[in-house]
Amino acid sequence: MPVYARVHITVSPCYSFYMKTTILTGDRPTGKLHLGHLIGSIEKRLELQQTADENFYLIADMQALTDNADNPDKVRSSVLEVALDNLACGLDPSKVTMFVQSQVPERSQLTMLFLNLVTLARLKRNPTVKAEMQQKGFGEDVPAGFLMYPVDQAADILCVRGNTVPVGNDQLPMIEQANEIVLAFNRLYPTDTPVFNKVIAVVSSDETKSRLIGLDGQAKMSKSLSNAIYLADDDATIEQKVLSMYTDPGHIHLNDPGKVEGNVVFTYLDIFDPETEAVADLKAHYQKGGLGDVTLKRRLIKLLQERIAPIRERREHLAKNPEQVLDILREGTAKAREIVKQTVHDVHAALRINYFD
Amino acid sequence: MPVYARVHITVSPCYSFYMKTTILTGDRPTGKLHLGHLIGSIEKRLELQQTADENFYLIADMQALTDNADNPDKVRSSVLEVALDNLACGLDPSKVTMFVQSQVPERSQLTMLFLNLVTLARLKRNPTVKAEMQQKGFGEDVPAGFLMYPVDQAADILCVRGNTVPVGNDQLPMIEQANEIVLAFNRLYPTDTPVFNKVIAVVSSDETKSRLIGLDGQAKMSKSLSNAIYLADDDATIEQKVLSMYTDPGHIHLNDPGKVEGNVVFTYLDIFDPETEAVADLKAHYQKGGLGDVTLKRRLIKLLQERIAPIRERREHLAKNPEQVLDILREGTAKAREIVKQTVHDVHAALRINYFD
Repeated sequence: MPVYARVHITVSPCYSFYMKTTILTGDRPTGKLHLGHLIGSIEKRLELQQTADENFYLIADMQALTDNADNPDKVRSSVLEVALDNLACGLDPSKVTMFVQSQVPERSQLTMLFLNLVTLARLKRNPTVKAEMQQKGFGEDVPAGFLMYPVDQAADILCVRGNTVPVGNDQLPMIEQANEIVLAFNRLYPTDTPVFNKVIAVVSSDETKSRLIGLDGQAKMSKSLSNAIYLADDDATIEQKVLSMYTDPGHIHLNDPGKVEGNVVFTYLDIFDPETEAVADLKAHYQKGGLGDVTLKRRLIKLLQERIAPIRERREHLAKNPEQVLDILREGTAKAREIVKQTVHDVHAALRINYFD
Repeated sequence: MPVYARVHITVSPCYSFYMKTTILTGDRPTGKLHLGHLIGSIEKRLELQQTADENFYLIADMQALTDNADNPDKVRSSVLEVALDNLACGLDPSKVTMFVQSQVPERSQLTMLFLNLVTLARLKRNPTVKAEMQQKGFGEDVPAGFLMYPVDQAADILCVRGNTVPVGNDQLPMIEQANEIVLAFNRLYPTDTPVFNKVIAVVSSDETKSRLIGLDGQAKMSKSLSNAIYLADDDATIEQKVLSMYTDPGHIHLNDPGKVEGNVVFTYLDIFDPETEAVADLKAHYQKGGLGDVTLKRRLIKLLQERIAPIRERREHLAKNPEQVLDILREGTAKAREIVKQTVHDVHAALRINYFD
């Protein structure tokens, strides 16, 4: 479905021009991707590559370095991993420009100029950053780069003239920040055609999918919490992980009635089992008693193994030729870079600091 | 005099290698330059262009924008003005690479990476920034770009591998910040030859010169305080400004004894009058009584007119061909940019994020 975007405020609410949809999505390269990424963002990405006018996929290594400055090797090796994960899932480089953040140094120029339009107080108020700072135990000793990463993310989107960004609810403050920058920029540096357009957040309607719960049932699936099933996991690993999955601690004997809510196996079946009626029957049976966890888990194991196997196999195949993957990134980065150069050029022109033109 | 710099800590304090001296100096383009700039920094710059191995002169328009984001035209027009001022004073483009900050977007890449090595608390503790924030009335509403400009200045120096920076005492915290970044970078990203070397601050021994007092005697000469004599001022303007100069408010009648301390005319005579003995006699006479302010001021007017006239004339001559000045900047910027690209390349290699090499 095409998304229409308007920037100029006109008297009547007519949509006076069609604006092409330019998608920006991306991953932080801090480890292999897992099921949470697959259903939370990669699937959306695959859908959009079929429908949007233009698609960019960013590997945000500069952002990963903001809180991994002491471990660049983790970031480095993860760049290839996340590229492999996305390609294995079906990201199509002929439809999506895949690029690496650090290899487009001109992008940082936008960040620097945007930082003049945002106050320290505003950065500290960002709810996403606040939550992450708390989680990571940062106080005033937060790396400055980390504190300002929402501004850097605005540069990510705007450097390729992105106007549509699929996000989870928790990422909405990032889009708000980007739009504040767009408004401030266009107000301070008016041009006949605004340099930047407002960014539209496409929020997933399914919160369960956009924040897939971890194996332990405690939190979002995440590498750092060791509660994830990776897209590279083999059958045995998937089996072992699902068997360790949190269900209902009160469901001790086979005939005990069991709880469905908060039971991770059912949460996953709701997402991954296409036979919704069968799942409804299983829920009823489980709640009544007489259905064992292992039976349920065997069902989920089979589903996840079938889901992940083709991804893992494509991944293994691609991993045999890392140079080929690097070539895709090299080519995408070169293409994105030309666009970013043009954006920086237009930004300089809007500020009239294009002395040498 | 060559400056020797050591980075590796070795057991004996031997200076094991000669490191070439690379100077970085610069101006914020926020208006024409004045006498304070001439004796505080330009003269040092002219001296260093004769002696240092390599000289870079930066027009810091990105930095000027950190607190002038709403007035890019001021910054834009001042770029040419400060270039004219420096060239008119004798800056020699064949010896000094003159470049414009915003036209080297790769430099911002370094700033972004350096921001990961500096905490928010550290930025807020910077004495120079603290003083400037107070002066400008910024609290938490400080533009983020302004708060972090010391990190951006570190990038200015290090992007061209500068290792020697002439500064006033008030700018020493900037060099400290740069050196903290150098140490953190070399510790986190060790390479056979360190990517960056420690920066040596060359502090002017003459504090009167490095912070020339304004016409009003109240503060440092500054455009914003309207207490400046510009290098572009004509004879009549110089005369009028010196006649308005603060002397001794207690020195009402010719025969009243007058104060020399805090008397701006004497401060300037100490700096600009080569006849030191004559100035000493004038001081004695003034203190005793019988020497009028106007007599003194006439002496200073003549000295300043003679000092500024050749600069102003060269300035007017150069201003007739702004394209020629722009060519100098264009050429210098292109040269600096190649060096910065190499620096960014080496930085990426040190972090091992040079995926495409």
